[in-house]
Amino acid sequence: MDLNSVFTELKKGIAEIIDEDKIKDMIRNFYEKGENFYVKIGMDPTAPDLHLGHTVTLQKMAFLQKHGAIIQFLIGDFTARIGDPSGKSETRKMLSKDEVLKNAKTYEEQVFKVLDPAKTKIMFNSAWDEKLKASDMIAIASTYNVARMLERDDFEKRFKNETPISISEFLYPLLQGYDSVEMKCDIEMGGNDQKFNLLMGRHMQRVYGVGKEQAIITMPLLVGLDGVNKMSKSLNNYIGVTEEPNSMYAKVLSISDDLMWDWYELLSEKSLEEISELKKSVESGKIHPKAAKENLALEITKRFYDEQTAKNAKAEFDTVFSEHALPSNMDEFSVDGEIWVVEAIVKCGLASSNSQARRHINANAFSINQEKVNDDQLKLGSGSYILQIGKRKFAKLNVK
Amino acid sequence: MDLNSVFTELKKGIAEIIDEDKIKDMIRNFYEKGENFYVKIGMDPTAPDLHLGHTVTLQKMAFLQKHGAIIQFLIGDFTARIGDPSGKSETRKMLSKDEVLKNAKTYEEQVFKVLDPAKTKIMFNSAWDEKLKASDMIAIASTYNVARMLERDDFEKRFKNETPISISEFLYPLLQGYDSVEMKCDIEMGGNDQKFNLLMGRHMQRVYGVGKEQAIITMPLLVGLDGVNKMSKSLNNYIGVTEEPNSMYAKVLSISDDLMWDWYELLSEKSLEEISELKKSVESGKIHPKAAKENLALEITKRFYDEQTAKNAKAEFDTVFSEHALPSNMDEFSVDGEIWVVEAIVKCGLASSNSQARRHINANAFSINQEKVNDDQLKLGSGSYILQIGKRKFAKLNVK
Repeated sequence: MDLNSVFTELKKGIAEIIDEDKIKDMIRNFYEKGENFYVKIGMDPTAPDLHLGHTVTLQKMAFLQKHGAIIQFLIGDFTARIGDPSGKSETRKMLSKDEVLKNAKTYEEQVFKVLDPAKTKIMFNSAWDEKLKASDMIAIASTYNVARMLERDDFEKRFKNETPISISEFLYPLLQGYDSVEMKCDIEMGGNDQKFNLLMGRHMQRVYGVGKEQAIITMPLLVGLDGVNKMSKSLNNYIGVTEEPNSMYAKVLSISDDLMWDWYELLSEKSLEEISELKKSVESGKIHPKAAKENLALEITKRFYDEQTAKNAKAEFDTVFSEHALPSNMDEFSVDGEIWVVEAIVKCGLASSNSQARRHINANAFSINQEKVNDDQLKLGSGSYILQIGKRKFAKLNVK
Repeated sequence: MDLNSVFTELKKGIAEIIDEDKIKDMIRNFYEKGENFYVKIGMDPTAPDLHLGHTVTLQKMAFLQKHGAIIQFLIGDFTARIGDPSGKSETRKMLSKDEVLKNAKTYEEQVFKVLDPAKTKIMFNSAWDEKLKASDMIAIASTYNVARMLERDDFEKRFKNETPISISEFLYPLLQGYDSVEMKCDIEMGGNDQKFNLLMGRHMQRVYGVGKEQAIITMPLLVGLDGVNKMSKSLNNYIGVTEEPNSMYAKVLSISDDLMWDWYELLSEKSLEEISELKKSVESGKIHPKAAKENLALEITKRFYDEQTAKNAKAEFDTVFSEHALPSNMDEFSVDGEIWVVEAIVKCGLASSNSQARRHINANAFSINQEKVNDDQLKLGSGSYILQIGKRKFAKLNVK
């Protein structure tokens, strides 16, 4: 085993490591003595839909699993189940025990697309937090001070802007840090926007005399499809890990050439040398950028499905988008008797309202049987029609 | 019963009332329907030595007891028993259960010098706080925000001066407010430096739907013997409620004429009219200020002892200070063989160290047998000596 190449690979696409030497010792210990080490990652159970942004960290964990890590996948169900007697906090939705368990199941299904289940422990912080008394909470709170808490980026901004911060919000990072005491983890990982919270785990392990202070690995945030913002569900610039393979493949192909190299570094399993080689070939004109993007799209789709499905997605994409042909599968609809073209578009699910359908027609984005149609008063008599909005939305309509 | 005169008397020497009309209704209800109402006062169990500053509030409570109030005397033992795992907080000393109970006993003895025991309930907030879980603590914390908490005077100053504020310190006022939820009190009283915390009780009763919001009565802070600072043990400008009668009487006589009128308003049971009359008589020269001060000293000493003891204290004071005579009782000490004067002073407890004793001698504050002595090398041979520092400290020394 070449430990140096493991360490080099470990650092690929990482934002920051704190206590790198400790991590090297852990991996060395694994190869020399067969000892495992424990890597914590925390997840908010309110949003169980994982997207590629999450997998950046998960893939690094999968890599660590190959070199001795047991992943402690922590579902923060405790705070998610705490109510607010004032009913004023809209930021935190309270979850029932059932919802949390259901979300946890969804998480499991999703993370095991990336992580090795045999080396993963799913944990719930309610297991220890529910046993804590108010006096324990106060003792935990006594270990940290207000000014330092207000140094956390988001708190600092909100305090300056006079946006209210509930005092309970100060307690959540403290409890997140306390999780590391109970879990006795050796490393905690997270996005680089989580650094403050990850350091809190070190602080708590030190204060509570756990006998070690966790190392920290932060991962850069994956930029989403728009090429500008952090990938997130709310910005709709994401690819979900349970997304249909055709959609997954097509979305990767839609990103800019610049963004593609970021994604290669954060999402591909290719080594840094291989990526660097590929980039040189593209820059010298030996390989077309689109071919490089196709490879990435295939690799990502294959990861969440299999090779054949990825190839099929590519074939489908090539058919629809590259050769302007019709997709092999289309939703079919039927109506009895003549129908107004605007109604037909809505009926087939290509627009959500008459006014939206009319806008598509007037924007020259509507075709029937691959011919543009600009007349929003058109009536469709009996016959079979392929309706199309833009490049990717199709439906078949039979008028009887 | 003339309710109007009760209300007038109620407002005597008060800093602020919030919801005055509610309090009037309570008193009216008592006289019309015989219904009691509940008045909370919180005490920190770490410092069970009550001084006259505390009795300002206790006397107002004693007045309310005559008009329908049941006093809920709350000992805040819960927070006093919470540890700090970091060991960093020096401001809060942790107390054991035994210490708290012992202190509570001391409190009882002291407060029943002012309050009617039959209309007083001693309560401990550990009774409900110990049952609270961390999740309850978080829910309580979620009802209040950081910026508003930082508006509390002392927090604001410390935050500006970058003096650390532990996050647990934010939880104590919240719990103090939550006490009002559990106690279902109708009024809370405290010093006017406590207004923020008293308002927290209203806030919590509202948030937790107790069905009422406590009225608030704040009392002005009693200025101490120095005539400048709030009376407090740490500034040593106080008269303790368990202090010796002679000392109590003498200390009242030592205050300035200006301060005397403040004390009359806050400590005397005389009505505002009587005090106003007395003041006029002093100003017009009909009564000497010292006579007014003697009356106050007698009233205060009598409250904590009895009339005869108060009169004896006055007689003793008059003998020692007015006629330069020796006190009737003096501590006696004996030594075998000649003794250095400096050692003698320390031996008799008139100074805490040789250097302090020497300073007294050099400051011309030391007498033997009522004659000033300036020689700090003097040796005392066999005989009987009255040693005296300043005007009030005496001891008898027999050298054999």
